[in-house]
Formats: sequence, structure tokens, C-alpha cells
Amino acid sequence: MAGNSLGTLFRISNWGESHGKAVGVVVDGCPALLELSEKDIQGELDRRKPGQSRISTGRQEADKVEILSGVFQGKTTGAPIALLIHNQDTSSKDYDDLARVYRPGHADYCYEAKYGIRNHYGGGRSSARATVGHVAAGAIASKILRERSAIEILAYTRQIHDIEARIDPDRVSLDAVESNIVRCPDAQAAERMIRRIEEAQAQGDSVGGVVECVARNVPAGLGEPVFDKLNADFAKAMLLINAAKGFEIGSGFGCAALYGSQCNDPFITIKGKVATAGNHSGGVLGGISSGMPIVFRVAFKPTPSIAIEQDTLNADLEPVKLSIRGRHDPCIVPRAVPVVAAMTAIVLCDHFLRNQNARL
Amino acid sequence: MAGNSLGTLFRISNWGESHGKAVGVVVDGCPALLELSEKDIQGELDRRKPGQSRISTGRQEADKVEILSGVFQGKTTGAPIALLIHNQDTSSKDYDDLARVYRPGHADYCYEAKYGIRNHYGGGRSSARATVGHVAAGAIASKILRERSAIEILAYTRQIHDIEARIDPDRVSLDAVESNIVRCPDAQAAERMIRRIEEAQAQGDSVGGVVECVARNVPAGLGEPVFDKLNADFAKAMLLINAAKGFEIGSGFGCAALYGSQCNDPFITIKGKVATAGNHSGGVLGGISSGMPIVFRVAFKPTPSIAIEQDTLNADLEPVKLSIRGRHDPCIVPRAVPVVAAMTAIVLCDHFLRNQNARL
Amino acid sequence: MAGNSLGTLFRISNWGESHGKAVGVVVDGCPALLELSEKDIQGELDRRKPGQSRISTGRQEADKVEILSGVFQGKTTGAPIALLIHNQDTSSKDYDDLARVYRPGHADYCYEAKYGIRNHYGGGRSSARATVGHVAAGAIASKILRERSAIEILAYTRQIHDIEARIDPDRVSLDAVESNIVRCPDAQAAERMIRRIEEAQAQGDSVGGVVECVARNVPAGLGEPVFDKLNADFAKAMLLINAAKGFEIGSGFGCAALYGSQCNDPFITIKGKVATAGNHSGGVLGGISSGMPIVFRVAFKPTPSIAIEQDTLNADLEPVKLSIRGRHDPCIVPRAVPVVAAMTAIVLCDHFLRNQNARL
Amino acid sequence: MAGNSLGTLFRISNWGESHGKAVGVVVDGCPALLELSEKDIQGELDRRKPGQSRISTGRQEADKVEILSGVFQGKTTGAPIALLIHNQDTSSKDYDDLARVYRPGHADYCYEAKYGIRNHYGGGRSSARATVGHVAAGAIASKILRERSAIEILAYTRQIHDIEARIDPDRVSLDAVESNIVRCPDAQAAERMIRRIEEAQAQGDSVGGVVECVARNVPAGLGEPVFDKLNADFAKAMLLINAAKGFEIGSGFGCAALYGSQCNDPFITIKGKVATAGNHSGGVLGGISSGMPIVFRVAFKPTPSIAIEQDTLNADLEPVKLSIRGRHDPCIVPRAVPVVAAMTAIVLCDHFLRNQNARL
Repeated sequence: MAGNSLGTLFRISNWGESHGKAVGVVVDGCPALLELSEKDIQGELDRRKPGQSRISTGRQEADKVEILSGVFQGKTTGAPIALLIHNQDTSSKDYDDLARVYRPGHADYCYEAKYGIRNHYGGGRSSARATVGHVAAGAIASKILRERSAIEILAYTRQIHDIEARIDPDRVSLDAVESNIVRCPDAQAAERMIRRIEEAQAQGDSVGGVVECVARNVPAGLGEPVFDKLNADFAKAMLLINAAKGFEIGSGFGCAALYGSQCNDPFITIKGKVATAGNHSGGVLGGISSGMPIVFRVAFKPTPSIAIEQDTLNADLEPVKLSIRGRHDPCIVPRAVPVVAAMTAIVLCDHFLRNQNARL
Repeated sequence: MAGNSLGTLFRISNWGESHGKAVGVVVDGCPALLELSEKDIQGELDRRKPGQSRISTGRQEADKVEILSGVFQGKTTGAPIALLIHNQDTSSKDYDDLARVYRPGHADYCYEAKYGIRNHYGGGRSSARATVGHVAAGAIASKILRERSAIEILAYTRQIHDIEARIDPDRVSLDAVESNIVRCPDAQAAERMIRRIEEAQAQGDSVGGVVECVARNVPAGLGEPVFDKLNADFAKAMLLINAAKGFEIGSGFGCAALYGSQCNDPFITIKGKVATAGNHSGGVLGGISSGMPIVFRVAFKPTPSIAIEQDTLNADLEPVKLSIRGRHDPCIVPRAVPVVAAMTAIVLCDHFLRNQNARL
Repeated sequence: MAGNSLGTLFRISNWGESHGKAVGVVVDGCPALLELSEKDIQGELDRRKPGQSRISTGRQEADKVEILSGVFQGKTTGAPIALLIHNQDTSSKDYDDLARVYRPGHADYCYEAKYGIRNHYGGGRSSARATVGHVAAGAIASKILRERSAIEILAYTRQIHDIEARIDPDRVSLDAVESNIVRCPDAQAAERMIRRIEEAQAQGDSVGGVVECVARNVPAGLGEPVFDKLNADFAKAMLLINAAKGFEIGSGFGCAALYGSQCNDPFITIKGKVATAGNHSGGVLGGISSGMPIVFRVAFKPTPSIAIEQDTLNADLEPVKLSIRGRHDPCIVPRAVPVVAAMTAIVLCDHFLRNQNARL
Repeated sequence: MAGNSLGTLFRISNWGESHGKAVGVVVDGCPALLELSEKDIQGELDRRKPGQSRISTGRQEADKVEILSGVFQGKTTGAPIALLIHNQDTSSKDYDDLARVYRPGHADYCYEAKYGIRNHYGGGRSSARATVGHVAAGAIASKILRERSAIEILAYTRQIHDIEARIDPDRVSLDAVESNIVRCPDAQAAERMIRRIEEAQAQGDSVGGVVECVARNVPAGLGEPVFDKLNADFAKAMLLINAAKGFEIGSGFGCAALYGSQCNDPFITIKGKVATAGNHSGGVLGGISSGMPIVFRVAFKPTPSIAIEQDTLNADLEPVKLSIRGRHDPCIVPRAVPVVAAMTAIVLCDHFLRNQNARL
């Protein structure tokens, strides 16, 4: 109950600290007979890893995944799959000054208040490095979904700072997402976004943004009322990503200002299949998927580690000035894109497996 | 794993359908020796119950709670507390026409796709009537928190349709919330909100809105990394409330358009106690409470049951016209207020108990 | 985590005290579309209920079950099934003297040490009355298994005091079990057992015994390594029955004194199907069912409530003499038989559902 | 829900196969601020490891544990503790013949029936090598218990084949247990046991036995009714150990043949503290510890891997003769002793932590 596991039938247990020997995840509940190799996972890790472009941190990590168990002669066996990724480029000396300072916007103070102890190297357990495990597990979840369904999951940058892109979630493609370093399929907006990030970086500052995610071809029926509603599980999965501050599905906060007669999506048939005209619901009604594309957005705050001098406290509760050195992303959003997609796959895979037990 | 239980140390199991014999909740994990009687619970149920005002449904339910177990001579015994609320005013005849029609914005079609069967009376299991159990369990959670901490939880209407109230979460009081039928502590906005709801109702339509919740005096240290972060558990608890479409904490989606140097809340001391100047974080950093007030908002869509005629499908997938009779809230938000507060108490109580095991 | 729920995919939550208003169980995870009515459950409750014969307690309980949710037009809907059984014949006055006395062999002292409070009427939460819920839930589990498999579960009395019956678990039938009040299919042993129980009763004393259970036609493959092995889950399910003191599967404790060359059951085929010659394993190898009949035994201690005067302590830790009045079974074993069968069905049903997710 | 995790507040997740790269365990829920190093764990692993004496397998494993996370500057941080033990001496060639043969008494056939695939090297996931993780996690559980309570856990060999030792669980010491290679504190019986094992080994055969475990100074109040009774959790924890076939607590199966007036342990005071005269209950009443020593026994079958030729089937279901080469313990019991103690510590630690939430 210490919060390091997630899921029911597809269950992941995450461990490791930013600058420890390694980080890892144990995937329990992967069905047997799935073809799986390290290659299936490495590709996704490469999308998340640091040092990919000029707008991401300079930390260099190979993030090479090793499968330690659960796979035999190229196939899963039903046993837990232990994945391990060694940490390499851990400039712990950058953090020596932070042993007794509470960085604003970070969890340093909260961890110390909770546990009475804190691994301050790279943020220790509170670091976004834990999301390596999310992406690795997400690669397995995605592969299960691909083998068993036609579900397609795509995440992309929707907004950086106050620059909003125009994207049609029904048509966006992975190629378009990967066509630029900010992972925004609207090429014009992407250019402005990159510029904004670079400007912030030049000033020792950082910016936030919004990631949108679409899951297409999700069959109707996924989600478990009353407490494990699909949208609720997405909300949780997104808010646990480092720096996430908000979640909305379909028309989200925009629904508040609508009339029911506008917000209700009328049921229609398209080629004999049930659909809705419009998708204010974002593909989930009453906590259960409707068969329409699932569309949601996640708000991320600006990276809290900035070079600009800040006021804060040290462990003796004395006011101090802090200018954070070290290598940090001026905007976390482009690297959050594969994490959002991975968490989406993990939630969908768990609900997909659970749904198999819905009827006699 | 069928999704009808929530929580770890304070765990609730919800059962019942809108027009069944009764609805109920079993609370497991309430510590022994808490003074508890039906009165402690009834007050909160009365705030949620239908038929309270001219802007809520005409359904009349006493919603009288009965404690069936777990309390002895006025105190909890550590045994599970079974709470039962009988359904009374169930005009099932209003629903006979709906047996074979999929109401837009409702879960009818999704339930049928999932289970191959659907209790169509009042929405059956998908009805917001399940939130009776949330409020009942929330009353117990609140009482535990009151006995053990100084935590104060307040929810209120922040927005109805496009009318936004001005409210200072640090100063709002329960009296102000309860001073009008829309539960908005900004009296001027409240008047306009009520008018807007009445206008929608007159047209056979409905409107959405936003509930804000503040939890004050939450000690630093609640929340469990990496997966059971406090904000993530709030997000889930809010999105599982019927009609919820979005969640944001602190500056939420607004964070996206900030610079890090604006969004970071500097640590300061106030009377020797750690605090932050500003509260963009909403009281949670790295998934753990910081000691600052927790502030979040939940978006609700307009009630999907409207009298205005809508296009939809019947069970044979033929297009039909539908005008929903029956008694429905023209806006769910005022009655969602106590539900948001109850779910907040449930999440905080669970994390409060869990946090007692954080250190040796 | 307070211990009042059991199972994963088929999950039961039990509540209620011996002399409270009611006892109940919520069954979550029953697949939709199972035909279910109160009749399906009542039959099993009648086998467990008190007052059935001259060797059981004189307490009279109709033990009439009421389905409060989860069933619609005769079929399960996938929603939780709440079952409620009212308590009726609660002679609480019999227990007034026990408010401040610790009955030997009972949990009175332990509950008080744990919770600082104790419902002393009929043993409160520690009473075997909680097994009403086990039997009710077991009836649903049995029905699921019958619909989906050919599994047959039979429990019966194997030993009373030092009288052991001769029974072939491969051939025993429900009729033979129900042919006498002690539920022992060996008629000659049954007569002696009944006499032994009556003698004990006449002396104000009680006796123990052993229940054996066989599950036939269990498919190979049920059970989840490493921690949820089928035999381990049976062991837990049996030891949590009131008064249970031991569990053994297959040759059990007898295996200790065997050579490997004796204890190993050679694999053979019978009509083209894999089987073993002999069944020392009791149908489970490495925690997974082998397809052979599952056979295990559960030891029960004598009913601790006896009329014979005993030495004990009161709540002030003063030595007192105690002679327990009230109506108690002189031997719990005959009424434990349906409880053992019910718990077996619950464990098998959960593992049956879980096993559906074993392979891609 | 795939069965590779155990516990609630102190929760372990086990992974790895006998001849894979490594085996491991993730411990989640260890409170922060416990002093912990690899030394604390290595000592217990050394007691379990193969190749310790002439009566254990010739496989040589250093079983050197590595702590990969959760410890900082010598103390636990509240983060999950990942423990990894590399496999070294894996003579996989010994197993090439077994790829398509079902070894009697082993899980080969059951795994294949369940998963449709099987890692046959050393038994893969079904191997007792998984108990390395149990012992490693048990060392942490023991340390928590030592820091917080006076609980002492001791396991020892009680019976080998038909040789029973005479041991007083109230007085037995670790030194006496470790004074001989069979881990039986009755020196005379130990000699005969060793001889019996050597005789079986000489004949290419194996023998079973019984391990007894005592936990002293357990406070009254541990255990959670109705489903997570302390004795039930012990039963499960013991039956999941490889080769375990039975469990009994206190007088166990012997209770069946007692009268209530014999079996009830009268409450008395000893130096002002509540105790019982006699301990037929084995320290648990109604599923909750009474404060008396907890005493239980676990039956183990003979090692199923024997050199003596056996009849069995191959994967084509043809009868074949099998003589198992490789290096196997002629009796698993001496090496099971530290595993029983470890599982006992794990169960007690979990219940110890859970009990802290019993009262307001």
C-alpha cells in the first residue's frame, strides 16, 4: 500500500531513484505467449530518454533496458517480467549543494516532512526518472493491445506556454508527431513553440504546456463502474506523471459552459456501427468507453528546476537564494508525450483484460 | 476487481441501483473507538438529497441512513460499518419507455455493450444515486479526520454555465456556501447562477458548472509516491463522480502558460512554520501535501437528461426522437458540492491513515 | 485492508455481528448474465442454519436471504450483489454476564486487546455467524462454476473426536453426505459419531473433528504462482473458518514420512487424458491444479462454548468461574461442512476467472 | 492479480526463474529510517543457500544480494527496496532432456496446461529458487519487528521421515537449531535424521519432514477478522512454500480428538499479564494473537527430483522412463527452515503494521 504499484490484472511495480544504481519496473499479469524482446521496449525508451535534442536536458543516458525474467525463447511465460535500466550519467556532485535546501516547485520539503529522510541526488525517488519504468511497461501494454485489438494510441504536444496548436485528433499520425523536436503535429505552431522554449532556456527559465492524447478503435465496454471508471483511471494515471496539474476528457472544462442540448452527443450509426455525432464526451460515458475515440488533455507546469535565482529555505528554515545548476529540460512537455501515451496504454490494457470477465 | 471498492486503509464498497430496493456502502477500515451514530451521517445526506430546492429534481427521497453493523454502544468497533439507505420514490413507470432507447450523454449504450444486460430504471447502476454511498462514507471519513487532525474541507460552486464566482479559498466558510441554493459563496454571482439554471430549466434544458474544493490545515506529508500521489488520487476520486469531465489542482491548466519563475512558489516561513508565497501548486508537490491549502476544481457537464427533443437510437439501432420525462436536476452542480467534499474526505482519510506507517 | 474482503476477480466483502440487526455480504465480480434468484442461495443457507437437528444449537434463525442489488429480471447485471440476512432469534440477555468475562477458547480477550472495545453479544464480529455470508457467496460461486465448467465440490465429515470414517473421495455423493445429521457418508461411522456428540452434549462438553473436501473435474491450470498458489489459497480460506486449526492437502502431513519414490504420483493417461497413478499430491502441483481431484482436510477444534465450569479471568483480570449458558453446538463440524464447501467454491471460482487471463 | 505479490502494508513482489539471469524481490512498504545494509540480508540468505552441507544439493550459488534502491546513506527512505540476486551455477544442460518430459511431483505439466509454454531449465518459475526472495524480504521484515517489538521467531526441523524430535518451543534457541546440519535442536534425533537422509540419498531417493515454528513475545491483537485472520495468513504463507503439504497451529489436527473442556486454554495471569494455562490454541484465538507463543507446523513432502527411475509421460503423452540427474537436495526440510522463519516474519510484520491502524 506504499503506492509503488498500479493496476489490477496488468500490474506494474516501480522502483529506483534518479541517481541510484538502476531504475526498474516489474510487470505482473502479462499473458503468456506474447512475443517480446528488448527491442520492443527500447524504441519507446529512446523517445523518452534525455539528451535527444537541443531543447532537452544535456544528461546523457543510454537507457538500455534489460529483461531479467518472464520471457523464454522469445515469448512471455506468464511469469512477472522484471525490466532493469542502469543509471549512468549521474552527476551527483551537481546536487551536493541541495542536500539541505528545499527547491521551490519540487518535492524536497514534502519528502522530508513525510519520511524524515531524503535522497537529494537528482530528486531521488521524486524524480521524473521513475517514468522510464512507465514507458517500459507501456511498451508491453501496447504490444498486448496490438495483438488483441485494433486500438491505436497517440499523444502529442497541444500547447506550449500560450501557443496552442490546431490538431484534429481523428487524423493525427505518429509521423506528424515525430516530425519535429517538440512533438507537435501542427508544423507552424511547432516552430513557434520551439522558439518559445529556447527563449525561456536562454533566460534560465522554463515553460509549461499541454499534451493531448487520442486512443482510436477502443471497443465499447471498457471501464468498471462505480470506482474504476475508465476516465477516472486515466485521470489518476495522468496526474501521477511528474509536473502534471490538470486533466480533462472530451470537452472537459469547456462542458461547464454548455447547455445539455449542446453537450449531449446524439447516437447515430455510421456504416451500421453505433457512433455519436460529435464527441463532447471524449469517448467515455458513465465511466465506460463508447467506441468513439477517447480524447483527453493533460496540463504540465513549467520545469521547476531553473537557473534564475529564487528565494527559498534551507533545512534550518533560514531564507536562502538558490540558482539551480545541473542539466534540466527547459520544458518537460516534449519528453512527457511518450509518457502520456505509455500510461494510456497501461490503463487501457488493464481495462481490456478486466473486461474479458464482464460476462458469463 | 470489478471496480466497486475504493481506498486501501479506509476502504469503501458501494452497491445498489437507482430504483432497486436500497443503496448502500460498506466502510472497512474505520478505526475502533470513534463515536458514531446515524446523526453524524444524516446531516451530510440531507445536503445531497433530491428535492431540496426549486432548482433540483422533484424526486422525493428521505435518504434515511441505517447503520447495520460495526457500531456498538455508540462507538465503532473496528468491524466493517454497513450503511443502508432504502429507495422510496422510484417512479419506475417513467422509465418504461427507456428500456430500449439509448439516452444521449448517458451510459445506457455502454452498459449494454459491456454487460449484455442493463437495468434501465433510473439508469440502474450508472445513476448518480450511487453517490449517496459516497456522501455517507465521506461523513465517517470527515469525522475521523476531525478527531485526529485540524483538517477542514469545504466545497462550493465556482462556476455555473459561463458565470464565474469570485471566491477566496483561504477564507470561504460553510455558512457562506449554504447561504443560497446554488451553494456559491459569492452572493451576487449566486443570484445570476440561479437565474441561469431556471432559464435553462424553463426551456427543458440544463447547464454545467465547476465545483471548487479547499482542504485547509492538511499536514505536510500525505500522499504516496510514485503511483498513489495525493493529487492523482484526488483526480480519480473526482472523475468518478457522475458527470465530471475535468480536474485541475492549484493553477491547473493555467500552469501551462506560465514561466517556471512565475509558477514556482518560493518557500517561506510564517510564524516559524514552512509555507509558500503563493499557491500555484495547490498544496501538493511531487504527489505529497506541502502543508499549504489544497485547492482543486472539478468540471461538470450539463445534466444529460433534458426535456428538449433529441435524436438518438433505439436498441435496434433505428433513429428515434427522444424527449426525457421524469424529474431531473437542471444543473447537477449544487448537489455535486457535498459529493466533492465527501470524496475529498475519503481520499484524505485514507492517506492520513496510510501516512502513519511512513516512518519506523 | 481491514480484512473483511477476500478474493480478486470474484471478491466478497463480509459485514455484520452475531446479534446485530443483520449480517451480509457484497459479491463483486460476478459476471453478468448469470441467472440468479434468492432460491439459488437459500438452499445452501438452510444446510448451514442453526436448529437443524438434535445435535445442533437450539438457536432458531430463518436465515432468509434478500438480494438487494445486482440482479435484474432474474439475471446478474455485472453490478455488485448485496445479500442481506436479518438476525432474529438473538437472546442477548444470555450474554449480559459475558460483557466483562473472557471466555476460554474464544476471541473475547484478543478483540479487546486489539480494539479496546468489544461487542460481547454472541461474540459480536468474532462469531461464526459471519459464515452465513460465506455460504451465501459460495452459492453464487458454485453457480458460476456449474455454468462454466463441470467442477463438482463435495465436503463431508471425515472424523468426529477419535472416530474416523472410511470414505472414498472419488465416489462420495451429496446424497450420502446428507443421509445423516452428522453429514458423514460412512453410515456406520456416522452413527457412532452422533452418539459421541450426544454424550459430550450430555456432559456439557463438546468435541472436534475433521471435514474433508473433494473437488472433481477441476481443469488443469488453476492457481497463480508464486504467492497465490491454489493450495495456499485453500489453506487460507479454510483456516479463516471459525474453529479451524489445521489444513492438509493430498497426503498432507502423511507426506512427511514417505520416500520421494512413494510420494511422487507417476503421470499416466486415462482414455487419452493426462492423469496420475495415485493422488498423494491432492490435485495440486507447484500451486497449480493438475486435473486430478483436489482433496484436502480441515481440522476443527471442539466448540469452545461449554456448560462445564471453567476457570478464566474477568476484565479486571480477576480469576472467575464460568459456565456458559446459551445455545451452542456440541460439535461444530456438521454445520461446518457447507461452509468448507462454500469457501472451496469461492476460491475455485476466483481462480477460474483469473485463469482466463493466463494466455494471450 | 497474477499472484506474484504478497502482503498489504508490507508488500513483496517476487520475480525470476531458477536459471534466468537473476532472481529478485521488491519490498514496498518498509518504513523509512530503518538502518539497512546488504549484510542484514546476506546472513539469512547464507542459511538458505545451496551447497551448505553434505545433505544438500551440490549446486553452488554465492546468492550475493544487491540492494538497488530504497536505501540512502545506510537508512531506508520509504521508497521500494529492490533486491537482486544473480544466478550463477546454472547447469542448464542437465535440463535439456526435460524440455519435453513431465517430471512426477513437479509442476511441469501444470504450467504447460496453464500457460502453453514452460521454461524447463531448473523448473523455471516453479523452482524453489523463488524462495531466495522470500528469505531476503524476511530479513527486512525481521529487522523491522526487532526495532519495534520484542518478537522472536525461530523455526527448526521437527520431523524427518518418521523420526520425530522432542523440542520445547518455549525454550528452543537459534544456537541449538544451528548446532547441526539438519537444523533440529534435539541432538539425538538430529543424528538419526541425518542418517536417514543419507540413506535415502544413497538409494537415489528422498524424504519429507515437518518444520515447526515458534514466534515468542508477539503482542496480543495482531490479525484482522474475518478474512485476514493471523492463522489464515500463516496457513497461506506456509502452503505457498515449495513442497509444503500441510499446516497446523497449536494442537492442530490433534484438536479434533479433544473435548472442549480439554482444548480450551483457561485464561490466567502470570506476573500480572494475561496468559493461558496451556497453549492448545497456538497463540491465536478468533484469528487474533493472544499474546501466547505462536506455534505451528508445516509438512513438507520428499523432494520430487530423485535419481531412482520413474514412470511418466513426455509432451506427446507417451509413457517414458525418467531418472533425474542434476543436483538435488535429498530432503528439502533443513533448507526450508529459514524459509519458514522468513515467511513468518513477513506475515507478522505486515500484521504488526496493520494493527497500528486498529484504533483511533
